[in-house]
Amino acid sequence: MSIPDRDSRDEAARYWRTSICDISPGKIAFRGYPIQELIGAVSFPAMIWLMLRGELPTADQARLLEAALVASVDHGPQAPSIAISRMAVSCGLPLNGAMASALNTLDDVHGGAGEQALGLYLDILARMDTGGALQVATASAIDTWIATHGKYLPGFGHRFHPVDPRSGKLLALVDEMVGKGVVSGRIAMAARAVESAMAERKGKLIPMNIDGATAVIYGELGFPPPLSRGVFCLSRAVGILAHAWEQSSRGERNKGPMPRSFPFLYEGSDLRAISDQMTISD
Amino acid sequence: MSIPDRDSRDEAARYWRTSICDISPGKIAFRGYPIQELIGAVSFPAMIWLMLRGELPTADQARLLEAALVASVDHGPQAPSIAISRMAVSCGLPLNGAMASALNTLDDVHGGAGEQALGLYLDILARMDTGGALQVATASAIDTWIATHGKYLPGFGHRFHPVDPRSGKLLALVDEMVGKGVVSGRIAMAARAVESAMAERKGKLIPMNIDGATAVIYGELGFPPPLSRGVFCLSRAVGILAHAWEQSSRGERNKGPMPRSFPFLYEGSDLRAISDQMTISD
Amino acid sequence: MSIPDRDSRDEAARYWRTSICDISPGKIAFRGYPIQELIGAVSFPAMIWLMLRGELPTADQARLLEAALVASVDHGPQAPSIAISRMAVSCGLPLNGAMASALNTLDDVHGGAGEQALGLYLDILARMDTGGALQVATASAIDTWIATHGKYLPGFGHRFHPVDPRSGKLLALVDEMVGKGVVSGRIAMAARAVESAMAERKGKLIPMNIDGATAVIYGELGFPPPLSRGVFCLSRAVGILAHAWEQSSRGERNKGPMPRSFPFLYEGSDLRAISDQMTISD
Amino acid sequence: MSIPDRDSRDEAARYWRTSICDISPGKIAFRGYPIQELIGAVSFPAMIWLMLRGELPTADQARLLEAALVASVDHGPQAPSIAISRMAVSCGLPLNGAMASALNTLDDVHGGAGEQALGLYLDILARMDTGGALQVATASAIDTWIATHGKYLPGFGHRFHPVDPRSGKLLALVDEMVGKGVVSGRIAMAARAVESAMAERKGKLIPMNIDGATAVIYGELGFPPPLSRGVFCLSRAVGILAHAWEQSSRGERNKGPMPRSFPFLYEGSDLRAISDQMTISD
Repeated sequence: MSIPDRDSRDEAARYWRTSICDISPGKIAFRGYPIQELIGAVSFPAMIWLMLRGELPTADQARLLEAALVASVDHGPQAPSIAISRMAVSCGLPLNGAMASALNTLDDVHGGAGEQALGLYLDILARMDTGGALQVATASAIDTWIATHGKYLPGFGHRFHPVDPRSGKLLALVDEMVGKGVVSGRIAMAARAVESAMAERKGKLIPMNIDGATAVIYGELGFPPPLSRGVFCLSRAVGILAHAWEQSSRGERNKGPMPRSFPFLYEGSDLRAISDQMTISD
Repeated sequence: MSIPDRDSRDEAARYWRTSICDISPGKIAFRGYPIQELIGAVSFPAMIWLMLRGELPTADQARLLEAALVASVDHGPQAPSIAISRMAVSCGLPLNGAMASALNTLDDVHGGAGEQALGLYLDILARMDTGGALQVATASAIDTWIATHGKYLPGFGHRFHPVDPRSGKLLALVDEMVGKGVVSGRIAMAARAVESAMAERKGKLIPMNIDGATAVIYGELGFPPPLSRGVFCLSRAVGILAHAWEQSSRGERNKGPMPRSFPFLYEGSDLRAISDQMTISD
Repeated sequence: MSIPDRDSRDEAARYWRTSICDISPGKIAFRGYPIQELIGAVSFPAMIWLMLRGELPTADQARLLEAALVASVDHGPQAPSIAISRMAVSCGLPLNGAMASALNTLDDVHGGAGEQALGLYLDILARMDTGGALQVATASAIDTWIATHGKYLPGFGHRFHPVDPRSGKLLALVDEMVGKGVVSGRIAMAARAVESAMAERKGKLIPMNIDGATAVIYGELGFPPPLSRGVFCLSRAVGILAHAWEQSSRGERNKGPMPRSFPFLYEGSDLRAISDQMTISD
Repeated sequence: MSIPDRDSRDEAARYWRTSICDISPGKIAFRGYPIQELIGAVSFPAMIWLMLRGELPTADQARLLEAALVASVDHGPQAPSIAISRMAVSCGLPLNGAMASALNTLDDVHGGAGEQALGLYLDILARMDTGGALQVATASAIDTWIATHGKYLPGFGHRFHPVDPRSGKLLALVDEMVGKGVVSGRIAMAARAVESAMAERKGKLIPMNIDGATAVIYGELGFPPPLSRGVFCLSRAVGILAHAWEQSSRGERNKGPMPRSFPFLYEGSDLRAISDQMTISD
């Protein structure tokens, strides 16, 4: 209990410092709010916002975030994250483990489109902040994206849905919130400018998809791009869990990607013998 | 396009069958509800309920689930799941990857207490269904638990909190919902009977903790025990993400469990030399 | 630097104590052997043994372990662990992340058969140690297994291979090592007694599979059952990595379990409308 | 069984095509070699090589790879991967799950240094191939690295070891293999040129560390940079497993990063009350 002893423990305490939660015997507070006052009083989306942003949202902000959380929960067993969750359960994993193997795959390709789309929208606004008109800023932001990342813009087009039924509803909610003064509408404007510019370039509409539309919401609400992916993980975790749970009532063991009677194709070397110089010496 | 071709594709389709989502070009529906009608109309807890249970909850049911979701988000950097999330970010993982490594650890010991507590409560009610009085059923259910799993009852007592500030508020909400006829209160009755029985046995109160209290909610709402763990994962994912995000703004690389100046203790074999017969032959 | 300060750091050091590695500036030793003396001198299987068991194996012991490590590396893309590895890479994960999602699924069902088989073998030997003859001990161990876990014995039979081409070679190596006095042959005896007893019960041979045969090796070498799964993970990690690497040269993005033109079957609720009392109040 | 049926199955088979393994009832072959001929005949490092590269290595090539595999197994409980493995076991995870959570963290920062170092070495050689002298090519490759990635060169220097005891031994083995004509020595030359150039710039030696030295081996053996990380994962998996196994014999539950008596520091908002407009409407 001497001062030097406190020094070591203080060094360790600082090493694990946080602004998120304050915990002492009998007391738990998040961002300054005692947990017993949050329970029953704030919505789950509001709690998510508080944990990630440090302040409680208004009811309208929470409602807009909630729409994005509801929209992205699942896209069926052809999505790798969902299929992996089901396969994992059949291998014996409990629900937490199946969720881990599946969420892990929401990486740059499977989970990064929203983050990238928001980056693109913010780039347009940054170009406008330095004096560019919307159309010019959009064109140059798109050009820069394509030069850096390739021709597919994140957040637009869908390999399966000609029109994504989620996007229109999400954007309508954003517009409603713009009307109420909850958000500025600038990110939505940038996103629609991308859609228009691409339609002009391609001669056909490549409509905003779920990633592009939720990125509008996250951006309007002030979430930085990496949190687009983080919040998407919270949403998709629901579908991953639902499919894991449904799978757990089936008798399948070691479920592979295809029915067992379906072969895979081997296209490698013909059968051959091991030459002597390659074997273990003994 | 002949019938046999359809047979193979049908076999594959059945292999990945699900009752959760119906997806075709331009259409996405969950449990029969088109996604564009769910977005903006149902709360995120209601969506979680729908995905896991197949039906939409009433507003009161959703509100009770929401309380449990809010209550369990985080318990600070001393919780392995939270510490792992922060360490993972410092190793270069994106948010989805940090969440995966962390959620994976919500296994039997770190994430299973609620599931086990609900199992205990249901065992008491099952014993009452076959004619036992509450006290007798509780005593025998506890005895069976201890004989099978050891002396620590899941959901009661806390190594850190003399009284868990979350439990009282959660149980008060359950009581409120019992009063409104939303839930029956039978699981809460069983849980409190465990608390009373243990107090009598030990001569002191070992109060219900967060796992025991959320298990009451999950049980009152009709969630089977394994989903206690699954829903807990959805809740704790929020805290895991919040700490990963906070960590990502720090410059730490390869963050170990303790400050780098803290040594670990080696207690193994003394230094020794390799004997000749153990080395690679060549 | 006072004594109490040392107390705190000592407590932390003890908290992370280990007998495996001794590390100080400029010095790294495993189980007492300086790393620079191990490199180039001991084989990788011998290093695995040293890390897990605390002592270096003889060359023959290492060679028998090596055979098991070589045998289990892969079983093709229909194995969930392999398919998941490939799908994970297509989602943007680096090799370490793909390995994580895949290894995670080597749980009780996908990775636990060897561990369970070794437990069965050891149960037979324990029954013999208390006086039972081989046949009697085998019969009662099998009966106990079936009563506890169901009718499928771990380590015997294969859904795909009438005879597993790996088992015969592995058992021949065990026999060779029994002849040289490297191992006792008692585990192999127990395993073969299971095979014989089942053939008699079923009227046909249900031959030992890779899990049953590698469990013989692990058991003969003195590895406790849980390490059967652990060492299997080291082996299968090779195939998981190889498939991840092969996949990384393909252009596929978000690879699902089946080709994209293959539909999945929805078998849930018909389309329906949300009733008013379920919607968000506002 | 009609032709169109075959078309669907063929499409699925091609979708899961591989050059690694050929499996049919009773037959398993890797890269053309029947598994029963590989077992007992090739070393585990040779099998790793075969799976990743498609051909069997010579005995000397395998031995050099083996040295790298032996060298990197573990760096103690202060390494995040090792600490996470131990914490995961205390949460109830089996060995495969602990390995998954831990291997997942061998990402760019914790597991990517070797991959990056090899990229740097190859950049030097590429600059020499277009006519540059060693010193000039090295200087420009280093400058390019620093301009792109920052001042710390991957593979050189160690926060803990003034001299890494593993590097010298590994490089001596490389030199031995250069003398035998097994490898060219060009990657080692480039790596040493980096070390010399940095020593001149800094006025002191920043010696090659384990990542820099194993990257020399992987490069000399012709492994592309991403496989440096992949093979490192195979090696570190051994230490991760060893620590998980050691931990599993301890009674600790939910092991956090520090002893439980060590507090963490809260540095966030002061206690505050929730304002009315933020609460759930009802």
